[in-house]
Amino acid sequence: MAYSVDFEPVGRRGPCPEGGTLLDAARSLGVDLASVCGGAGTCGRCKVQLIAGSLTDVTAGERHSLSERELSQGYRLACRAWPLGDCKLHVPPESLTALQRTQVEGLDVPVEVKPPVHSYLVQIDPPSLEDLRGDDQRILAALRTVHRIEAHIPDLAVMRDASPALRNSGWQARLTLRGREVVAITPPDAPWLGLAVDIGTTKIAGYLVDLATGQTLASRGAMNPQIAFGEDVIARLIYASKGPEEAAHMQELLAGALNTIAAEACAEIGADPSSIVEAVVVGNTAIHHLFLRLPVRQLSAAPYVPAVRAEVDVKARDLGLRLAPGAYAHLLPNIAGFVGADHVAMLLATRVAASAAEQRGAVLAIDIGTNTEMCLAAAGEMTSLSCASGPAFEGAHIKFGMRAAPGAIERVRIADGHVEYKTIADEPPVGLCGSGLLDAVAQMYDVGLLDKRGRLAHGPHVREGENGIEFVIAEEAQSGNGQAITVSQHDIRELQLAKGAIRCGIDTLLQNAGLTPGDLDQVIIAGAFGTYIDVASAITIGMLPDLPLERFSQVGNAAGTGARLALISRTMRHEAQQIANRVRYLELARAPGFMHNFAVAMYFSPRGNGPTS
Amino acid sequence: MAYSVDFEPVGRRGPCPEGGTLLDAARSLGVDLASVCGGAGTCGRCKVQLIAGSLTDVTAGERHSLSERELSQGYRLACRAWPLGDCKLHVPPESLTALQRTQVEGLDVPVEVKPPVHSYLVQIDPPSLEDLRGDDQRILAALRTVHRIEAHIPDLAVMRDASPALRNSGWQARLTLRGREVVAITPPDAPWLGLAVDIGTTKIAGYLVDLATGQTLASRGAMNPQIAFGEDVIARLIYASKGPEEAAHMQELLAGALNTIAAEACAEIGADPSSIVEAVVVGNTAIHHLFLRLPVRQLSAAPYVPAVRAEVDVKARDLGLRLAPGAYAHLLPNIAGFVGADHVAMLLATRVAASAAEQRGAVLAIDIGTNTEMCLAAAGEMTSLSCASGPAFEGAHIKFGMRAAPGAIERVRIADGHVEYKTIADEPPVGLCGSGLLDAVAQMYDVGLLDKRGRLAHGPHVREGENGIEFVIAEEAQSGNGQAITVSQHDIRELQLAKGAIRCGIDTLLQNAGLTPGDLDQVIIAGAFGTYIDVASAITIGMLPDLPLERFSQVGNAAGTGARLALISRTMRHEAQQIANRVRYLELARAPGFMHNFAVAMYFSPRGNGPTS
Repeated sequence: MAYSVDFEPVGRRGPCPEGGTLLDAARSLGVDLASVCGGAGTCGRCKVQLIAGSLTDVTAGERHSLSERELSQGYRLACRAWPLGDCKLHVPPESLTALQRTQVEGLDVPVEVKPPVHSYLVQIDPPSLEDLRGDDQRILAALRTVHRIEAHIPDLAVMRDASPALRNSGWQARLTLRGREVVAITPPDAPWLGLAVDIGTTKIAGYLVDLATGQTLASRGAMNPQIAFGEDVIARLIYASKGPEEAAHMQELLAGALNTIAAEACAEIGADPSSIVEAVVVGNTAIHHLFLRLPVRQLSAAPYVPAVRAEVDVKARDLGLRLAPGAYAHLLPNIAGFVGADHVAMLLATRVAASAAEQRGAVLAIDIGTNTEMCLAAAGEMTSLSCASGPAFEGAHIKFGMRAAPGAIERVRIADGHVEYKTIADEPPVGLCGSGLLDAVAQMYDVGLLDKRGRLAHGPHVREGENGIEFVIAEEAQSGNGQAITVSQHDIRELQLAKGAIRCGIDTLLQNAGLTPGDLDQVIIAGAFGTYIDVASAITIGMLPDLPLERFSQVGNAAGTGARLALISRTMRHEAQQIANRVRYLELARAPGFMHNFAVAMYFSPRGNGPTS
Repeated sequence: MAYSVDFEPVGRRGPCPEGGTLLDAARSLGVDLASVCGGAGTCGRCKVQLIAGSLTDVTAGERHSLSERELSQGYRLACRAWPLGDCKLHVPPESLTALQRTQVEGLDVPVEVKPPVHSYLVQIDPPSLEDLRGDDQRILAALRTVHRIEAHIPDLAVMRDASPALRNSGWQARLTLRGREVVAITPPDAPWLGLAVDIGTTKIAGYLVDLATGQTLASRGAMNPQIAFGEDVIARLIYASKGPEEAAHMQELLAGALNTIAAEACAEIGADPSSIVEAVVVGNTAIHHLFLRLPVRQLSAAPYVPAVRAEVDVKARDLGLRLAPGAYAHLLPNIAGFVGADHVAMLLATRVAASAAEQRGAVLAIDIGTNTEMCLAAAGEMTSLSCASGPAFEGAHIKFGMRAAPGAIERVRIADGHVEYKTIADEPPVGLCGSGLLDAVAQMYDVGLLDKRGRLAHGPHVREGENGIEFVIAEEAQSGNGQAITVSQHDIRELQLAKGAIRCGIDTLLQNAGLTPGDLDQVIIAGAFGTYIDVASAITIGMLPDLPLERFSQVGNAAGTGARLALISRTMRHEAQQIANRVRYLELARAPGFMHNFAVAMYFSPRGNGPTS
């Protein structure tokens, strides 16, 4: 029997080929592990870390390639290690040949650049025998004399660096003020930067922004490293609830990822992270609490209330972020236990609040992810809810599911009895990403291979597999790893649950407002996955309501864009606060008609109605 | 040749008896090392830590009594270790049988109790399926509804503890507000405490205060643990300037000492340090900067300017203090590089500023220590200066000098040719503390054994010692360690330098104001040493001006009292700020006539004038 191998955070799992090494397993599963020596154990590039399970003993070659420290942490060369049971492995980013595709573009909303920080270039009087004032006094005097501003420097971290730095810079400096607080004293010729970050359950997107112009200078994507502790947030909340060390560990994972993003984005433009004088971070309520190391036990039990709902301004260093020593991180407010700051950011970027205020018809905004949050703005009211759509769109629990990486099938068409597909980077197929799975199921339904209940019938490209019948997208011969890429009955059920949850949310919001799907003037689809899906396919299976395609817009990472807007505009920050106060939270499971809606939403049908219609 | 052994922080140094252990050396030097087994190496109580020098090898008995960790840190049993050269040793407090006498009483100034924090008892609405607000919202709502206060909770540390604590306390709590900020959420039945600390170069005094009544509930003294890095602050500044680790180490030593003081004082009244919701800390500018881990390099080189002169409000936890998680520490403002927050606190407690404002004659306030700061209030003006009086009064560089501990001679009289003395705790004499040395020299001058230049003449009780002539206070037979307690010519020179520096400061301040000593209406002597001295003796040797004794008052630890006043009164905090702004700093070494004043001040004479007069 082949052992199962799970590579994280790339999210690929499957059997290890008979007698194969971890590198063989990685290749068969489409994990692009680097290997310069071709598996000879000499280049040391295919490093992976054992998280769970057991492997053959460490070889002499590995002792040579890996440090004592790496060995003690369970690092191995994938080409020299054979599984002795089911294994879970962590793949460090440097061991991957290709970066995953991560959504970092998002919307671009015009906004007046008016960040919450101000910058002043000053020439400060140096001390002398005739001028014995403290350094703090002379800095503030420079602001007072030239700029007529009465400021203060309450943060010791700012002064700790300032005294030696000013003596090295000829007493010239750029002072960054936040209100009346001097938060940074930086060299006059250094750039003046802000950092906006959207921490998703699975992915993190970071943007480095010029605070003077509002321009995004660099952007980076990364995987959320907490994923090793659970793909859904509930598992992470339970882990963090175990004790202060576990909570600190979850926090530090995120801080480390954000520091890497900041350092890499800065390196791209030749800057130093100490030039980042303000940050905005968004995430769902669970991620928000984990990142702030707030108590989470009450988030994982009814009635699921946040410890902190209000917007937060905290010294970035107190979160372990290495920016300017006095820089603040701003976290947008949460709405409820399952509708967080990222939803507020999405509503900010998509201007849904403005639509609601101006009563511009009914607008539905959906951010599809492991948890899907959505908001209906209609008749001047905004109502939001969250539904647990699960990680199927991210490739989890799907036999050939994988995240959007090279070799993932992202489009499927059945034309004239032939199955056509397109892979990311046009590489030989190794799996299916969310949009590919959605397309495949929609096409199967369209050609009559699926009934409304989602039962797969025998027909062309359908065969008997190891675990029941399956639909074949790519034959063994076409595949990049020698395995046919198929969709099983079980995979269809997983997608059905996900799409059912989303549609149930939509229908519940509409009913709550006394509307029908046809009343929707606009449907905004946000989030990385939402950007790549074929809306027509989503309508076909009844995930999205059957409306003219022109009413849909796919806006990319709106939460990230919202974070950027809040970074460069005080007005936007204020608006975010108003959104959080105004949005009414609807708890899906307690809404009238929930059970009926969910049952109906599970059916495959563009109308989303039951089999009797 | 006997090796020299130096015990710190008790400040006793001298030769180790021939063939003697460290315990023998300690006993001969009057260091009260605990020893239950009488030096058999079995009780493990006489633990000391080797800081410098070398000792005989670790014995099997020590391996048994000391932990691996202690051994690796250089801990030894004093009864099992013999010096192999000159040694410096750290004596942990638990190895001492008797605590040193430390001044913690101070003045008591009537003041209206109006601390910068307020306390509100609240009953908070618990969450339910009908009330999904965040914990932060429901806390603030309780304040709003019952007390009509719009507050906010910007500090995550407060919320980290609050969510679980409120769920355990039936949603009842005491909220502490500082302005509009909620800084602590504590159980409703816990005491409501503040901590005031005066960090001296040598000693630390801490006071636990009931913030509702202003009463001091407990007080503790401790040695400043930084003393192992230098008795004067300059050595510590140089050490801290070496790098961030050294600076952090100096900071952590103080934080550790303050935490011990807080924990012990709390234990005395059955409270927990987490009930301390506000702290005030004072110290000289160097100590202030070391405690805040501010840059100090510019403090140890001309023109000696502080990095931070203004008052500081910082989260106590950011300084490593374990009080309520959101509690602030307030540091009074500094005046200049050598006149710090402790001087401001002393002026606050002695009401010198009020005297100056009301022009109630000329008042001189002096805080005698390793550095002596003094302020002259006259004609509505306040001028302060600092002089390096050195550690002679603390027993350093004096052959039989020691700090005020049991067995120290604190009073000396020569009557009818007999030398009479009194020791602390009436124990057999083992050394001389500062007030005893001052008395001895004044008496020697009075009976004609010293001339104005301080030259010791032959006469009764004067004998030829190993290093020249010496005056014998206690013969070998009377002594607690078998050695005669004597004052050498060198000891007299050390005292002469100290008293000369202080008198030079006084004369310079008076000249600067156009006054003579006789114009002084009041002389306030603050500080632990100042409390114990015989003012008449100090006048005899010309350390203090020759004025009627009723014009002098000895007020104890005024800096500590000032810290307590600033803890319980916003008005006092405001006044401290005004004092710092108003006091004119005079740099002694640059004042006109400094060299002449210093030369004259060195003479032993009640008039402080030269030998020609």
